[in-house]
Amino acid sequence: MKLCATIEDMRQTLAAARHRQPQGTVGFVPTMGNLHQGHLSLVERARAENGLVVVSLFVNPVQFDRPDDLATYPRTPEADLALLAQAGVDIVFMPPAEELYPPGFATTIEVGGVAAVMEGPSRPGHFNGVATVLCKLFNIVAPERAYFGQKDAQQVAVVRQMVRDLNMDVAITACPIWREGDGLAASSRNSRLSPQARAQAPVIHQALESLQRAVNQGVVDVALLEGQLSAALTAGGTEKVEYATLVDPTTFTPLAGQRLQPGRPALALVAAWFGGVRLIDNKMLEVPAR
Amino acid sequence: MKLCATIEDMRQTLAAARHRQPQGTVGFVPTMGNLHQGHLSLVERARAENGLVVVSLFVNPVQFDRPDDLATYPRTPEADLALLAQAGVDIVFMPPAEELYPPGFATTIEVGGVAAVMEGPSRPGHFNGVATVLCKLFNIVAPERAYFGQKDAQQVAVVRQMVRDLNMDVAITACPIWREGDGLAASSRNSRLSPQARAQAPVIHQALESLQRAVNQGVVDVALLEGQLSAALTAGGTEKVEYATLVDPTTFTPLAGQRLQPGRPALALVAAWFGGVRLIDNKMLEVPAR
Repeated sequence: MKLCATIEDMRQTLAAARHRQPQGTVGFVPTMGNLHQGHLSLVERARAENGLVVVSLFVNPVQFDRPDDLATYPRTPEADLALLAQAGVDIVFMPPAEELYPPGFATTIEVGGVAAVMEGPSRPGHFNGVATVLCKLFNIVAPERAYFGQKDAQQVAVVRQMVRDLNMDVAITACPIWREGDGLAASSRNSRLSPQARAQAPVIHQALESLQRAVNQGVVDVALLEGQLSAALTAGGTEKVEYATLVDPTTFTPLAGQRLQPGRPALALVAAWFGGVRLIDNKMLEVPAR
Repeated sequence: MKLCATIEDMRQTLAAARHRQPQGTVGFVPTMGNLHQGHLSLVERARAENGLVVVSLFVNPVQFDRPDDLATYPRTPEADLALLAQAGVDIVFMPPAEELYPPGFATTIEVGGVAAVMEGPSRPGHFNGVATVLCKLFNIVAPERAYFGQKDAQQVAVVRQMVRDLNMDVAITACPIWREGDGLAASSRNSRLSPQARAQAPVIHQALESLQRAVNQGVVDVALLEGQLSAALTAGGTEKVEYATLVDPTTFTPLAGQRLQPGRPALALVAAWFGGVRLIDNKMLEVPAR
């Protein structure tokens, strides 16, 4: 496994690797490090589908709204590199911040549409920062395919919107959420849960699963379903439901006031707090044809 | 010469052409049509330096501040295509507006820095619109080199800033300003000049040339030089000097209050009106070493 810290080294390493394997595709997994099983499932998928696998480890300063969040973001490069070597990654790109944002840097990709709803307004600049760094990384790595976790569902939608709008020549694959045995979605935040909060947190997945059962039984009123979702989370011990909302899976427009219909899937999104830790999860809901 | 109207056709045509000529580079000249000798000099340069030459003809709606400017922008596709065929162009990309901006399009590239001074503030959204369409076109055409006219000096600087900031893998070439025999810079606006205004307009180039002579003679005070430039334009019959300003050629920061120095070139920028037509021109000033 080759480690690159500069754009120049990255480009040369990739060019040499592509020269050796002219038919092979490049699969790219962008991460902010502090890797868990969710990330590794993306790497595994990329490994299975491509001749060359590139992973970036880069804590992207421009997507943080608050400087203290950036400063305290967990950084575990040694452990990350060991995991990636074990997973058969070919090239790791781990640049210092000033390599991607040198003095005089002044360009931002502003994604509207899907970035302007739900998580967008409450985190000003976040999705623009994500889009900007991914545009840069895609231009540096030039992958045929890039892999993202479906857990950050809106982020995936924002990336798809940018790729479509800017005609980027990369295929975006959203991989299924990796879950612990009890259903809790993998997240670097899980390690911050107290034993009690860790025991409660699987209720998110359970509540989402029971939502599909309700739909199967004929409940299609969005307000009713959202009420049921919130109630299940509260009964399960969350101290705060930040949102428990059904949205259009493409535009992320909330479906409040509507009824679900067969052939038009809805995405149920949850952000809820357990023991002072904010957790997110989601599930696509399908209305069975009658 | 092959004409493509869709992104899909463009990509397939390029892939086939690259397959036939794996060693050849692609040179790209983006234009808004209504071609003149200035454009053709870019095409000639691209033709000399690349295996494949691609020209786009696209009046980009998102870079116009005012809808009536967009509506009245001159469109001469038949004449343009004849000129490009004659110039030995391989592929012309001429998409309808909705091909590049379909319903739901929502992404903008916001260039700060060099785009935030001089022409930037007076034309809100203009450089963002230019950057956005060029990013799209670069992603569709994937050229090794792209060619721009030095006449739109700030536009070239904005493109360079975007390419640098977003790590785009394309070399930007700025070509010398193409001039009529009397020094008037080629522009599609020249055809709108009255005979009297046409006779006066070469004063812009003369004033810029005499500025370098003043520098050669030891005048290095920016305020003095700007005053001389304005005075020459006014004496030459302009009805309005919009700006006659010396700037840093990289950042476009005005050099007001400074003195020119050897080894630090300055860019003299002019926008002036003749017979109701706004003309621009520029010249790099070099201070001779003593």
